[in-house]
Amino acid sequence: MTTASLTPVLATPSELSAQDCLHLDEATRKDASLRLKSAKGHLDGIVRMLDDESVYCMDVLKQIKAVQGALSKVNEAVLKAHVRDHVATAAERGDTDEIVNELMDALKYRS
Amino acid sequence: MTTASLTPVLATPSELSAQDCLHLDEATRKDASLRLKSAKGHLDGIVRMLDDESVYCMDVLKQIKAVQGALSKVNEAVLKAHVRDHVATAAERGDTDEIVNELMDALKYRS
Amino acid sequence: MTTASLTPVLATPSELSAQDCLHLDEATRKDASLRLKSAKGHLDGIVRMLDDESVYCMDVLKQIKAVQGALSKVNEAVLKAHVRDHVATAAERGDTDEIVNELMDALKYRS
Amino acid sequence: MTTASLTPVLATPSELSAQDCLHLDEATRKDASLRLKSAKGHLDGIVRMLDDESVYCMDVLKQIKAVQGALSKVNEAVLKAHVRDHVATAAERGDTDEIVNELMDALKYRS
Repeated sequence: MTTASLTPVLATPSELSAQDCLHLDEATRKDASLRLKSAKGHLDGIVRMLDDESVYCMDVLKQIKAVQGALSKVNEAVLKAHVRDHVATAAERGDTDEIVNELMDALKYRS
Repeated sequence: MTTASLTPVLATPSELSAQDCLHLDEATRKDASLRLKSAKGHLDGIVRMLDDESVYCMDVLKQIKAVQGALSKVNEAVLKAHVRDHVATAAERGDTDEIVNELMDALKYRS
Repeated sequence: MTTASLTPVLATPSELSAQDCLHLDEATRKDASLRLKSAKGHLDGIVRMLDDESVYCMDVLKQIKAVQGALSKVNEAVLKAHVRDHVATAAERGDTDEIVNELMDALKYRS
Repeated sequence: MTTASLTPVLATPSELSAQDCLHLDEATRKDASLRLKSAKGHLDGIVRMLDDESVYCMDVLKQIKAVQGALSKVNEAVLKAHVRDHVATAAERGDTDEIVNELMDALKYRS
């Protein structure tokens, strides 16, 4: 697929030109993809739970929490790859300010 | 669908017998279902982003954060319905201890 | 001391008239007081750490995190007392809406 | 004061030899110190609130949250200084692995 078709998904397109050369490493990318597909399956199960009129609130909360935990793990892995491959090399590249501000923004709103 | 088929999804089945009589109200249940379906669509978009070898880490993080925000809103709504319909009535029913402990557990692990 | 002298500390005075009759139980109140005094001592130690010009960032972060953990435990205990003594009895008192909205506000901004 | 006298405060001494050469920059250090002193004063106010037998739980929670917010800001500032001065220069120094693992640990347990 093309990047163009992703536009609706991208709430905040990165302003870094870095985007053009700083890629997510392949191992992390494939692992993240698998984990997100599994999270999607889990969400599907919660949607089916909600078809049951007698579903108990706390069971829904527990399932949502499990999905949030799975997403946090993906986040962690992508963040680690980013820090290792792009933040730790910023002084060498000479874009420390942009990279640091971008990282702090990402961490600030972290749930 | 039957409850039985949900077993793989239920990581921690509720031990409360309350589960048999304390239901999630219909409006919250339907709203949660819609929002989770939308979150699933969003996750699908992120999986497609990850097919692109040149995807930038930060763009993945932003999208995952957006999904986490959506899940937190569902959480909030289900939690509010639970507090209003089941916690606030606990003294009347006489199961305050169980209800309070269960709620505190749910909040403790809240991401 | 009088309540009046606390005004500068109170960022958001509670609007509930409930404030006049819903008190924090004594055991939780005394335990919270002890724990907060200990957190103050810990903060004092971090301030002294910061007098050292060669202090390492990560050591400061670890100490602040320890204090945040201690505050979260106080929070948890006060919240549990509130849910048990005031939220679980709301339907009996007839102020469910106010109590639920106030609790959800408190949880929403929870760090 | 000497570093030795800080030992009781240090829950987890940093294993990085980096500790010997990577210092928190002076501006951040002084700002953090001021903010922590202010947080201590705020905690003192909450301890005094708790002397009042009629204190309302939610008012205690709001005050603790305000202190937690203040600590989070100090955290944020120290973290930013660390990322800018020590993480972004890791590839140049050649200690990327230690620095990245240490940062991820710090972020993992972030409240």
